[in-house]
Amino acid sequence: MNKHHLTELIRRKRSFLCVGLDSDINKIPPHLLDAEDPIFEFNKQIIDATNDVAVAYKPNLAFYESRGLAGWKSLERTINYLNTFGDDVFTIADAKRGDIGNTSRQYAKAFFETLPFDAITVAPYMGVDSVKPFLSYQGKWVILLVLTSNEGAEDFQLNQPPIPSALDRFGIRIQHYSGRKLYEQVMLKAMEWADDGSMMFVVGATKAEMLQGIRKIAPGHFLLVPGVGAQGGSLEAVAEYGMTPECGLIVNASRSIIFASNGSDFADKAREEAASMQIQMESLLKKHNVIN
Amino acid sequence: MNKHHLTELIRRKRSFLCVGLDSDINKIPPHLLDAEDPIFEFNKQIIDATNDVAVAYKPNLAFYESRGLAGWKSLERTINYLNTFGDDVFTIADAKRGDIGNTSRQYAKAFFETLPFDAITVAPYMGVDSVKPFLSYQGKWVILLVLTSNEGAEDFQLNQPPIPSALDRFGIRIQHYSGRKLYEQVMLKAMEWADDGSMMFVVGATKAEMLQGIRKIAPGHFLLVPGVGAQGGSLEAVAEYGMTPECGLIVNASRSIIFASNGSDFADKAREEAASMQIQMESLLKKHNVIN
Repeated sequence: MNKHHLTELIRRKRSFLCVGLDSDINKIPPHLLDAEDPIFEFNKQIIDATNDVAVAYKPNLAFYESRGLAGWKSLERTINYLNTFGDDVFTIADAKRGDIGNTSRQYAKAFFETLPFDAITVAPYMGVDSVKPFLSYQGKWVILLVLTSNEGAEDFQLNQPPIPSALDRFGIRIQHYSGRKLYEQVMLKAMEWADDGSMMFVVGATKAEMLQGIRKIAPGHFLLVPGVGAQGGSLEAVAEYGMTPECGLIVNASRSIIFASNGSDFADKAREEAASMQIQMESLLKKHNVIN
Repeated sequence: MNKHHLTELIRRKRSFLCVGLDSDINKIPPHLLDAEDPIFEFNKQIIDATNDVAVAYKPNLAFYESRGLAGWKSLERTINYLNTFGDDVFTIADAKRGDIGNTSRQYAKAFFETLPFDAITVAPYMGVDSVKPFLSYQGKWVILLVLTSNEGAEDFQLNQPPIPSALDRFGIRIQHYSGRKLYEQVMLKAMEWADDGSMMFVVGATKAEMLQGIRKIAPGHFLLVPGVGAQGGSLEAVAEYGMTPECGLIVNASRSIIFASNGSDFADKAREEAASMQIQMESLLKKHNVIN
């Protein structure tokens, strides 16, 4: 799906909601455990209940891999089911992969061919050749980790490297502070590898105030924003600082939607939660003139 | 497997060789393609032919995931087969995972329980809570990406952050250069999370001269060293700068061993290649007084 189609999808559904399918076998409604594939059954009912108010779905690979073969089967069924909706949903493999070029090519094959997702989340630590193999697929997207929503984002992402040292007017060796934290350097470097038609950035909703600076660097890029909902980020703040004329945001909520209830009404409750977010999103899209 | 057992295994086999199972379906000998599970058959023959000269095996997840369900089955069979050797081989899931705590817990379950590996490679970008869940398993190991063997290692890993700014004696704001590149900061931070009994670091053989600095920071940690063989790193240089009294090195070779031939003699040729590395390694272990 290209950027134009994604923007049109957002305008049509009046929503920029992504539903995170962090489908934990220990948290789904117990009555589903008798199904042949409980996780797929859960996902299918969530998708059926929410796809008119959500533009994207994001299976979190860890919850599938932890179940081994059975989990991989559920994942395969889920992406195949999502693809029956065609361009009506945008699909994201939340895999956070990244390895030497030779290996990243295999990951690209895994998540763009074997499992035909539209996008994959990629970790930047290994640099250019770990990311580029994902960029050779027309119409597919790399969603690069930039500034994540978790506690550990403080450890390295906020590091500030200097520009090369120099002598000042008194002959003393100084380091000019470049003003670029690691997450900003990651964005700037990544923008040399691809434009905003095939790359997005992950920016946690818990760091909404930093979206102003991020928009100065990347005014046109779509941002995938996790951390609204269970992790506590604010949708208003994200839109205030991050929304563009083409929306430019995909906001993910996982647990707050999919585990809104663990009774037989789980799909209805998930829909209520997703619909309530869609209403907020519609009003923010209007406020920022993305839709009328 | 704890550190003591790993060192004993190295001394007993007089080798610190890890065979990387980057088992590409397009590169294995054609006669295996008729087998029910060609990749497992390939891996099994490689393991049978090399396990007296190799201490560790490292399936590279990308080559399994790219084949979907079939690949996951091959991987499951491979780790189960490796585990029939008990403490005679050290097993590494080369997965380069890492996500928010809630998700990393699921990845830890995937690679320490569902697929019972001894160790997993982990990417550091998301910081403390992305790594810690892997550390709660007794006798299991996190192998954290520090300085990788690829071109893209230059992009971020070699960044040098300053210490906090201050005013110099003329009232000019300066940045003192801390001397710590990102990969060094990753090591120093990670050493706050775990000791050398449950954490190793990935350091590419193509960066052997940097092992001196790395050993100043982490004199006792095991290092997983890829990049010897197809990627061009030197075994002698790695041992010269990186070997400790307990060896402290696991050197990986993948393609140069497993694809030494793609005829019916592939296992024999893989053994020849692995045995030749073991002979070099034995001589380096003697030279550095790890064995007599």
